[in-house]
Amino acid sequence: MTTLDDLPLRDDLRGLKPYGAPQLDVAVRLNTNENSYPVPEPVVEAIGKALAAELRALNRYPDRDAVALRADLAAYLGHGLTVEQVWAANGSNEIQQQLLQAFGGPGRSALGFVPAYSMHPLLALGTGTRWIPAARGVDFGLTVDEAVARVREHAPDVVFLCSPNNPTGTALDPAVVAAVLDVAPGMVVVDEAYAEFARPGTVSALAVLPGHPRLVVTRTMSKAFGFAGGRLGYLAADPAVVAAVQLVRLPYHLSALTQAAARAALAHRDALLGTVDAIMAQRDRIVAELRARGHRVADSDANFVLFATGGDQAVAWRTLLDAGVLVRDVGLPGWLRVTAGTPAETDAFLAATEKLQWEREK
Amino acid sequence: MTTLDDLPLRDDLRGLKPYGAPQLDVAVRLNTNENSYPVPEPVVEAIGKALAAELRALNRYPDRDAVALRADLAAYLGHGLTVEQVWAANGSNEIQQQLLQAFGGPGRSALGFVPAYSMHPLLALGTGTRWIPAARGVDFGLTVDEAVARVREHAPDVVFLCSPNNPTGTALDPAVVAAVLDVAPGMVVVDEAYAEFARPGTVSALAVLPGHPRLVVTRTMSKAFGFAGGRLGYLAADPAVVAAVQLVRLPYHLSALTQAAARAALAHRDALLGTVDAIMAQRDRIVAELRARGHRVADSDANFVLFATGGDQAVAWRTLLDAGVLVRDVGLPGWLRVTAGTPAETDAFLAATEKLQWEREK
Repeated sequence: MTTLDDLPLRDDLRGLKPYGAPQLDVAVRLNTNENSYPVPEPVVEAIGKALAAELRALNRYPDRDAVALRADLAAYLGHGLTVEQVWAANGSNEIQQQLLQAFGGPGRSALGFVPAYSMHPLLALGTGTRWIPAARGVDFGLTVDEAVARVREHAPDVVFLCSPNNPTGTALDPAVVAAVLDVAPGMVVVDEAYAEFARPGTVSALAVLPGHPRLVVTRTMSKAFGFAGGRLGYLAADPAVVAAVQLVRLPYHLSALTQAAARAALAHRDALLGTVDAIMAQRDRIVAELRARGHRVADSDANFVLFATGGDQAVAWRTLLDAGVLVRDVGLPGWLRVTAGTPAETDAFLAATEKLQWEREK
Repeated sequence: MTTLDDLPLRDDLRGLKPYGAPQLDVAVRLNTNENSYPVPEPVVEAIGKALAAELRALNRYPDRDAVALRADLAAYLGHGLTVEQVWAANGSNEIQQQLLQAFGGPGRSALGFVPAYSMHPLLALGTGTRWIPAARGVDFGLTVDEAVARVREHAPDVVFLCSPNNPTGTALDPAVVAAVLDVAPGMVVVDEAYAEFARPGTVSALAVLPGHPRLVVTRTMSKAFGFAGGRLGYLAADPAVVAAVQLVRLPYHLSALTQAAARAALAHRDALLGTVDAIMAQRDRIVAELRARGHRVADSDANFVLFATGGDQAVAWRTLLDAGVLVRDVGLPGWLRVTAGTPAETDAFLAATEKLQWEREK
C-alpha cells in the first residue's frame, strides 16, 4: 500500500496531521464555537426561497465578483463602508489565505502573537510564508510595548492581530492596533471573527480603517450569524486591498448558492443576531461561576471561555467528554476552551466540571 | 487615493489583472464553456429539497471530510473507485491549488504543455510554484517523444496534462499519459474537466490509476453536469494523495449547501447528463460546418471548438460580439474558442461567423 511517505510531499508538510477538532457525536458539543441556536424558521424559509431562485440557472457561473453580497456586507458593517472596500470568500480562512498569497508568500513573513487562532500558522505554511510566533505576556495579555517591540524586531510582511482573541477570548486594546499600524512595515490583519460578542464599549478596528490602507479587518458569518455551515467570511479594507486579493482569488470561488444564502441571512440579521445577547449571558455566567469557585478564567469578549483546568488539560478534556460534554483542547498546558451556548448547555458544562480534579488557585 | 502600487503587494503579482473572461450581458454567451441547458425542473425540485433539509442546522459546521459526497462521486466515476480515492473542493481550481500546495510550492516547479487551461500557470503563481511552459507541436499536438523529452529536460515536481485539452478541445493520446507517468519524477495531474464530452473510444486516465500512486485525475461538475454555479470540482487518485491534500485544505472548505446540492445533482445525473449528447451533436456540427467552409478547426472532444479566424483574433472577437455572440479570445493569435450550446446558439454563431473576414486555408 502506498503511504504519504512514498509520495513527493513537501518536506515542511511531512508528519503533520489534518487540522481540525474531533467531529464526535456527543450530546453537548461546545468545542468549535458554533452558535448553538438553530436557524429560526422564518429565516430558514427566506434562505430556502433565495436558493430556489438560483437553482434553474446553476448551469451558469456565479457572479465572479459577488457584488450584491459585498454591498450587503458593507451595509451590515456600517462605518460608511462601500462595496469596493469589502471582499468575501468561503470562510475567513480563505480570506486570510488570499491575503497571505497577495502580501506574504515565498520570501516573506507573517507574525502572530500566540496563542491566537491556530489556523494562522497553517495558512502561512500553506502559502509558503515564513511564520513568526511572538509570545504573549502574563495571562496571555498583549501590551503596546510588547507588540511594538516584536514588530520592530522582526519587521514582518504581515502582522496578524486577533480581537477578540481566540482561544483566550479577550478583545485587544485599540491602542495596540494603533501602535502596530504605526510601526508595521507591511499589512496588519485584525481577525475579528467574534466581534459581535464583544463586551459593551469594545472598539472594532473598522473604526480605524480611514487613512490606514494597510489595515485589513476580517470577519465571519460562522459565529454570531449562526451560519457556520454556509461558509462565509469577509474582509473590510481599502479598495486597493480588495484589488490585490482579486489577483489571487480563484475565479468563481463563491458559489451562486453561497452568495444567495448569505444575502438572505444578512437580510434577516435581526432574527439571526437575536441569539447574541443570550449567548453573551451564558458566557458571562460561565466566567462568573468558575471564578466564584476560585478558578482562573480569561476575560471573554467572545462566545467561548478559556479556563484553567489545573493539571493535565488532556485528562480534564477526557473527563468532560466522559460526562457528555465536548470542549476544545487547544494545546495550551493547563487550559481548555468551552463554547458558550444555550442555558441547558451551560448547566451540563458546569455540572460536568464538578468532576474535574481542580487545583485551586493560590 | 491609495492604489495597488502603494501596497506591499508581492512583486510577481504587480501589473497583473484579475483572471476571468468578461462577464457581458449578451444574448448568446458561448465564452466560458458553460452548459447552455438550464437545470431541468425535477432536478431543481430535488436540489431544493436537499438544500431545505440543511438550512435549520446551518449554525453547525459541515462535515469537514465531505464523506457522503465523496462516496457519491466515487460511485459516479466507477472504475472500482472508493471514497478514500476521491476528494472534493469548490471547483477544480481549488483542487489543483491544493495539489500544488501539497506537491509544488516554494522551491518546486510545475510544467504544462501550452496552450492548456490558462489557470494552471496562475495557480502555480498563487502557490509560489515555478511554472514551466512547454510548447506543443504542430496544430497544438503533443506526441509521446515531445512530452517525454520536456519532462526529462525539466524534471518538474508536478506535470499538468489536460485531456480533452482546453482551449484546443482534443483528447490526449493515452500513450502520452503512460509515457509521462514513466519518466515524471513527481506528480502527474490529468485535468479531465471535459471528459464527459469525449468522442467514443476516448480513454480516461481513470483507467490508469491502479498501480500509479503519483497520478491524479481532476474533474468538475461545472460542464457536463451543468452545475457551474454550484462550484464542485473533485479528484480521483491513490488514498495517499487524498491524505496529502487534507494537510493543506482549509478546514470546512466545502459548505453544507454545496455538499447537499452536489449530492442531489449526482443522484439525478441521468437527467443532467442527458444534455451531453445534444451538446456533442452541436459541437460536431460546428466543426463540420466550419471545415466545410474550408477553415482550420481543432479536433474536439469537449463542449467547445477552437477555430482559426484568419487575421487578428481580437478583431474577429469584436465582430462576433457586435453580431450578438460572445466567444472567448484565449490569447492565441489567429484563433478563437466557441462553446457548443443549443441548436439555436449554433445557428446564431454560424450566422455571425459569416461576417468574419476569413483567410481561406491554402
